[in-house]
Amino acid sequence: MAKVTTNMSISLDGFAAGPNDSVDGLHDWLYELSSWRERHGLDGGTSDVDAEVLDEAFRNVGALVMGRRMFDLGEQPWGDEPPFHMPVFVVTHRAREPKVCKGGTTFTFVTEGFEAAVPQAREAAGERDVAVAGGPDVIQQALNAGLLDEIQVHVVPLLLGDGQRLFDNLRARVELERIRVVEAPSGVTHLRYRVVQ
Amino acid sequence: MAKVTTNMSISLDGFAAGPNDSVDGLHDWLYELSSWRERHGLDGGTSDVDAEVLDEAFRNVGALVMGRRMFDLGEQPWGDEPPFHMPVFVVTHRAREPKVCKGGTTFTFVTEGFEAAVPQAREAAGERDVAVAGGPDVIQQALNAGLLDEIQVHVVPLLLGDGQRLFDNLRARVELERIRVVEAPSGVTHLRYRVVQ
Repeated sequence: MAKVTTNMSISLDGFAAGPNDSVDGLHDWLYELSSWRERHGLDGGTSDVDAEVLDEAFRNVGALVMGRRMFDLGEQPWGDEPPFHMPVFVVTHRAREPKVCKGGTTFTFVTEGFEAAVPQAREAAGERDVAVAGGPDVIQQALNAGLLDEIQVHVVPLLLGDGQRLFDNLRARVELERIRVVEAPSGVTHLRYRVVQ
Repeated sequence: MAKVTTNMSISLDGFAAGPNDSVDGLHDWLYELSSWRERHGLDGGTSDVDAEVLDEAFRNVGALVMGRRMFDLGEQPWGDEPPFHMPVFVVTHRAREPKVCKGGTTFTFVTEGFEAAVPQAREAAGERDVAVAGGPDVIQQALNAGLLDEIQVHVVPLLLGDGQRLFDNLRARVELERIRVVEAPSGVTHLRYRVVQ
C-alpha cells in the first residue's frame, strides 16, 4: 500500500523553523540543487547527493497534505506555478473553492481536519505515496493520529536555539526503525525512519 | 590544545532524559557493550561499532565536568567504584570535601560555577581532553559560555515526546561543522560536530 511520508529540514536542536517563521539558514542546502531548481522551473544547479535525496523524496509522491499556515505563507511567493506539480490538500477551517495552478498543482481546501485530508490525498495519489508537507503542527497531527509511515529529517549542522520544533506536542512515545542514513558532503545528514505503529 | 567535548544519547526529538529524569530506553544501546561493561567492572559483552564509539569517546578524556543533579542521581547507584576512573569536577552550590573512590574516580566539588570548573578539569586532564558529562543543563552552560569544542550525539530511534531536551536555553545561534557520522547496526546514529566559535 502507498505510504504517508514526510521530509523536513531541522537544525540539530530540532527546529524546523526559526523565530517568527524565519528559515534562518535551514534550507540553504536546497537552493543550488538541480532537483530543487527543476521543481521551481529553473535550469542548472548541482547534481550531488543532496540533489538525489531531494529528487527521491518526491519521486513517488502523488499528493501532498499541507497545513493552513504553510499555505498562507507560501501562496504569494509560489506565484502562478507553485513547485509541487501535484494535488495539494490544505487543512484549514476556512472553506474555499479549489485553486488550480499552472504546472499541475491544485490546492483543495479540507475543512474537516487532518484526518479527513489523508484519505482524499490517498485517493488522488492512487498507487503513489502521500507526503505531509508541513508545517510541524501538521506532522505532529499525523504522528498523533498514527497516520505517518515514514519520516526523513535533513539534519542541518547548526543550533538555532529558538523557533518551532518539528517534534513537539506528541501525545505518546513513538518507536522508530532507522531505514537509511545519508552523510552528504554539504554537512547535512539525511536520516530516514519508519514509524513503528 | 586539549578539547572540551561531550557525548550524549538523545531521542530523535532531542530529549536526553524522559520525564522525571527517567532514561526511558535512551541508554539501552549501551548496556551490553563490552566497553560499557568494562568501565563498570564487568566482563564480556558485544564488541561492535557502538562499543568502539563508546570506547573512543573516553579514550582521550582525562577529566570530567558534571552537574550537581547528575551527581546526586548517580552517587548511590555508582557505589564504591564509579565508572569514570578519572577526576570528576562537580558544579554545585554546596561546598563539600573531595570524595576519592576506588578505581581512580575522584569527585571535586566546585562552587564557583561551571566556568571555574573547566580550567580545573583542564589542569587535571593535562594533555588529554575534558568531557562534559551532563546533564543537559551543564552542556547548555558550556555552549552558552563558548567553552565546548565538540559535541557527539548518539541519536536513538525513538520519539520520547516529553522530558529534558539536550539543546535548550541556548542564548544564541551556534554554527556546527559535522566531523563524522557512524551508522551503527543497532539503529543508533552517532553524529559528531565541531562547534564553530
